[in-house]
Amino acid sequence: MRSDALKQLLLATPGPTPERLAADFDRLWPIMRSITGEGVRRTHAILNDIAPLTSLEVPTGTQCYDWAVPEEWVFRSARLYAPDGRLILDAVQNNLHVLNYSAGFSGSVSLEELQEHLHSLPDIPDAIPYLTTYYTRQWGLCMSHRQREQLTQGRYRVEIDAEHVAGSMTLSHCVLPGDSPEEILFSTYTCHPSMANNELSGPLVAAHLLRRLASLPSRRYTYRFLFLPETIGSIAYLAAHGEYLKTAVKAGYVLTCIGDAGPATYKRSRQADTLADRAAEYVLQWFSPGGLVLDYWPGGSDERQYCSPGFNLPVGVLARTIYAAYPQYHTSQDNRDFVSFPAMCDSIDLCFAVALLLERNHVFRRTNPYCEPFLAKHNLHAPLGGQRLPGAWKKARQWILNLSDGTCDLLHMAQRSGLDYWLLTEVASELEKAGLIIRSASPKGLRPAEGAI
Amino acid sequence: MRSDALKQLLLATPGPTPERLAADFDRLWPIMRSITGEGVRRTHAILNDIAPLTSLEVPTGTQCYDWAVPEEWVFRSARLYAPDGRLILDAVQNNLHVLNYSAGFSGSVSLEELQEHLHSLPDIPDAIPYLTTYYTRQWGLCMSHRQREQLTQGRYRVEIDAEHVAGSMTLSHCVLPGDSPEEILFSTYTCHPSMANNELSGPLVAAHLLRRLASLPSRRYTYRFLFLPETIGSIAYLAAHGEYLKTAVKAGYVLTCIGDAGPATYKRSRQADTLADRAAEYVLQWFSPGGLVLDYWPGGSDERQYCSPGFNLPVGVLARTIYAAYPQYHTSQDNRDFVSFPAMCDSIDLCFAVALLLERNHVFRRTNPYCEPFLAKHNLHAPLGGQRLPGAWKKARQWILNLSDGTCDLLHMAQRSGLDYWLLTEVASELEKAGLIIRSASPKGLRPAEGAI
Amino acid sequence: MRSDALKQLLLATPGPTPERLAADFDRLWPIMRSITGEGVRRTHAILNDIAPLTSLEVPTGTQCYDWAVPEEWVFRSARLYAPDGRLILDAVQNNLHVLNYSAGFSGSVSLEELQEHLHSLPDIPDAIPYLTTYYTRQWGLCMSHRQREQLTQGRYRVEIDAEHVAGSMTLSHCVLPGDSPEEILFSTYTCHPSMANNELSGPLVAAHLLRRLASLPSRRYTYRFLFLPETIGSIAYLAAHGEYLKTAVKAGYVLTCIGDAGPATYKRSRQADTLADRAAEYVLQWFSPGGLVLDYWPGGSDERQYCSPGFNLPVGVLARTIYAAYPQYHTSQDNRDFVSFPAMCDSIDLCFAVALLLERNHVFRRTNPYCEPFLAKHNLHAPLGGQRLPGAWKKARQWILNLSDGTCDLLHMAQRSGLDYWLLTEVASELEKAGLIIRSASPKGLRPAEGAI
Repeated sequence: MRSDALKQLLLATPGPTPERLAADFDRLWPIMRSITGEGVRRTHAILNDIAPLTSLEVPTGTQCYDWAVPEEWVFRSARLYAPDGRLILDAVQNNLHVLNYSAGFSGSVSLEELQEHLHSLPDIPDAIPYLTTYYTRQWGLCMSHRQREQLTQGRYRVEIDAEHVAGSMTLSHCVLPGDSPEEILFSTYTCHPSMANNELSGPLVAAHLLRRLASLPSRRYTYRFLFLPETIGSIAYLAAHGEYLKTAVKAGYVLTCIGDAGPATYKRSRQADTLADRAAEYVLQWFSPGGLVLDYWPGGSDERQYCSPGFNLPVGVLARTIYAAYPQYHTSQDNRDFVSFPAMCDSIDLCFAVALLLERNHVFRRTNPYCEPFLAKHNLHAPLGGQRLPGAWKKARQWILNLSDGTCDLLHMAQRSGLDYWLLTEVASELEKAGLIIRSASPKGLRPAEGAI
Repeated sequence: MRSDALKQLLLATPGPTPERLAADFDRLWPIMRSITGEGVRRTHAILNDIAPLTSLEVPTGTQCYDWAVPEEWVFRSARLYAPDGRLILDAVQNNLHVLNYSAGFSGSVSLEELQEHLHSLPDIPDAIPYLTTYYTRQWGLCMSHRQREQLTQGRYRVEIDAEHVAGSMTLSHCVLPGDSPEEILFSTYTCHPSMANNELSGPLVAAHLLRRLASLPSRRYTYRFLFLPETIGSIAYLAAHGEYLKTAVKAGYVLTCIGDAGPATYKRSRQADTLADRAAEYVLQWFSPGGLVLDYWPGGSDERQYCSPGFNLPVGVLARTIYAAYPQYHTSQDNRDFVSFPAMCDSIDLCFAVALLLERNHVFRRTNPYCEPFLAKHNLHAPLGGQRLPGAWKKARQWILNLSDGTCDLLHMAQRSGLDYWLLTEVASELEKAGLIIRSASPKGLRPAEGAI
Repeated sequence: MRSDALKQLLLATPGPTPERLAADFDRLWPIMRSITGEGVRRTHAILNDIAPLTSLEVPTGTQCYDWAVPEEWVFRSARLYAPDGRLILDAVQNNLHVLNYSAGFSGSVSLEELQEHLHSLPDIPDAIPYLTTYYTRQWGLCMSHRQREQLTQGRYRVEIDAEHVAGSMTLSHCVLPGDSPEEILFSTYTCHPSMANNELSGPLVAAHLLRRLASLPSRRYTYRFLFLPETIGSIAYLAAHGEYLKTAVKAGYVLTCIGDAGPATYKRSRQADTLADRAAEYVLQWFSPGGLVLDYWPGGSDERQYCSPGFNLPVGVLARTIYAAYPQYHTSQDNRDFVSFPAMCDSIDLCFAVALLLERNHVFRRTNPYCEPFLAKHNLHAPLGGQRLPGAWKKARQWILNLSDGTCDLLHMAQRSGLDYWLLTEVASELEKAGLIIRSASPKGLRPAEGAI
């Protein structure tokens, strides 16, 4: 149930249409992505058409904590020919047919030898699995189990035209400045080829959310959007900026698997009760009946890095049907049919509502905290006393005036009072204009580190 | 379920009979009260016959935080004559017929003009509403909606003989000294004319509770009773004594709507878990099956001031059917038939039991905290060991000896052990006499501020 | 449900057979025990055959806090002859026939006089009650209520050959050294004659648990086992060693009523959420379906002393059907038929599992806490990325690497992750060997006080 006040806020700064998302999706879908290489670069260039991103290239071999940036993957083609010479598998038809980051190989192999390099899913015999080999140099092909079972004895010709070369890994980010250097972080990943919920929904929702936030006339917080190869990308980014982010990030969210028609899901941060968690859970509760809130676990996506013990950032995950919770996950069946562009629009609304909530979530204190103020003097008094039932607006005034003690934010007030958060923000504005409450000062002294971004 | 020990304590210091309450009620009922003026003075004079009160007069215009004390309302009569000259409304018949604190007016008005000054309740067509206009100077009359609907076209004569003059606002209080300057506060209000549950029950219960507490041979705590016009009265009192009360009040209660036959209600303080809350909830649980405990909300009565963020006193509300929870609230139907004098006696018992609980609620510590004491040496040992099931008295001894570590009060012990609080107080006396436990010293140094009262 | 990993740990260090327990039981059963005297000495000598104990003799009259060590009870025989000269009661047949610690008496008494010295249980007419008179000097006999009802008028001859003499009270203990002076305490009592669950099960389980722990090649903690007369024994021990135990004991358990076939019970320590409590509750949950966890109450056994406010040790109670919860408690019906030697073996397994849990319950921190480690470099990486469902081992790795922040112990990790504790210990070893996590240093400086033991 979305309150009218929230509906109006969403309408005032509209997001994209489903058609626009579909068009962007179709541009991104065919690209062969991996953690490094041209696929990522082309992907980021297209995202840059939605919202302005800055690309960063991290050279091959750069040390990032325990990790080193791997070589670029140059992929040209992958084909398999049957013993009778027929072309029976071609990565042109589906990017998943090649084991991602596969070594190149050209040669003729027996069926037995071939089997050692083939991957399929007996449980989902019609799906091509998505598998990667970033840190073990090998060649491989993926196919449906049904196809694999039909392979007959004989010698197969394998042509994988791929190589690994020194180069760089591509990250993109955008820092949207706000009145405060305190940051809200949104992070998503761009290394999965030709899957739809995981991952095209993440970058699409993130880029359009960024575009929508950029269209606001002003922002309280600074917003940082990250588009990274999963794992190694966030690790490289944290190696460069993690210490600063520890001081700057008030709340953050990984966006992933956020484009299917299922109800929204929020996975809590490792800390579990941060502002990020409270805001997302509140919006989810009102926004998405049937929405799920999950406790943190250290598997999943880049929250594994953001919530590693050395950072422990207030970062949760916003999703719809989350990774590993749907059978199409990491297969060729996670495709355009599986996702819903109206659902992606709804996801953008949800994320935008979370941001709007954070923007308005001030801590107030009364200018004079003793007793109630004399509302008549401030033109806030009803003409007659003794009314039997106060309306929601009057109740909201009473709650805000009572809880504005410099410790409660508006979200706490909404939760304690049971009143709608968005109504409280309007009433708080009225009381602020009347001079009855003022915002508690933000913590001082936080300025972006020299060259931090 | 009241334990026998509590029943005996209540019988040992009896409260008033229902007949006595009825007689006091009948003296107070006819008076035209408002926040200022002679009605309040006469009301306090009658209450002074029940228990000795000290009256305070706060001059008109006195600044109290954001507020100023309003002028005195001098009301003499209010009458309405129909176009045919018949007297159709007279405040002599019901004080609610005049908008409380109405301006004077004498003149002839059309029905249309009159309607702008009439107030009624379409939902409860037989009731006269109670409405006030303390801070907007206007004249008005209140009538049943049924009567209002029968008014015909024509000119009506209005005679409201009332004026506002410089004078003072009347407050009364009584400070009943105890061994400690730490205070228990009871506050009620005296500005509502001719309603029974809200408000005559409050002042009646408070005055007789005060009389009963005054009859105790000694008191641990100092008790402060306040009889005030609602809102402006408590604000004026806090402006004078609030800073001292912040240091002195251990627990406090607003008494309101405490005379009907419904089950008892406790509305928590803003802090929610103070001694005031724990004591009231414990007594309610045993005293009043079906009793309600409500979380704090910042509407209602004078708790709005006591619990404003600058004070945040440990003050809750003791009531039966609380304000706005019964349809007769703030109408002429909140009358003598709606209340029950036996229920008011029960309310006095309830409040008295809360006070007795607080009086006895010591924190103890063992004189020798190591191991159990050797009970035989202290004449507390059963002659045979190995008994299969200890009785309640022995269990109470074990709990008190175990939890007397200088941090737990007896109420905590009752809650942790599940044993009856009043039994624990008796067993604690036994152990105290035997020298096995002593009371933890009260915090030192609290003395009433110079001229504080 | 015991995990396979735990089953293997239990098998690797096996406990006694039921037959061995039965044989030990039969040696201990006939002895007339009391809080002092030869019975206790002979009991401790037999226990010393199971595991090496050190006996301590505390002289009669030694002051221990509020208490003094009582004289030794020298008991030789107790017989009752009917008016016709028949021997109708002889303590040789059941040690419970004599009021424990009874004064000696020889003489002829009327039935009326005799009745004042007889004890029986009308509710359980076939049982002989167990009663004591440690601190009131009197003589007495106990019999079944059925027998008592058949007594006829006449003079009865009473021959109780018993006396109280200066001597000493016998305590035994064993301190099994570990790598750390931090201690795990197990305490049980040895003063009840000829009952089976309360108390032979306690000393039998304790002695065999000690033997089993002693057979471990190494121990992290120091283990202290106490075999004491109930109450006065633990008080005397605390008087000598209590201050040291306050600094040394990390977790402790009283073992009592731990030999019947009922499900296991854990009674929490007074503090309720110590390591002792968490460990016992975790093991109980997996080990004993239907097991009970009870909140602390200050009755029962020697936890009354360990948890007295001056000590407040982290000591709970491990039992099966706990004292006073079975009708045979403190009667002759608490006999060999009531207990189960296989159940006692299971109790030893349970206690041993608690000790093993504590032994392995380290707090870890990551050597490099930033992001995830690069598992491939540490030979911990699966050859293919993108697997759809991680196995339990991989999940355990992720949890341990995520929660190793120097504040969580493995038990916390098991509880937060829902993964099996014993699996986590194995995975933690792997990660420790790989150098990815290290144990947080134990608190320093704790060394046994000079001559503390």
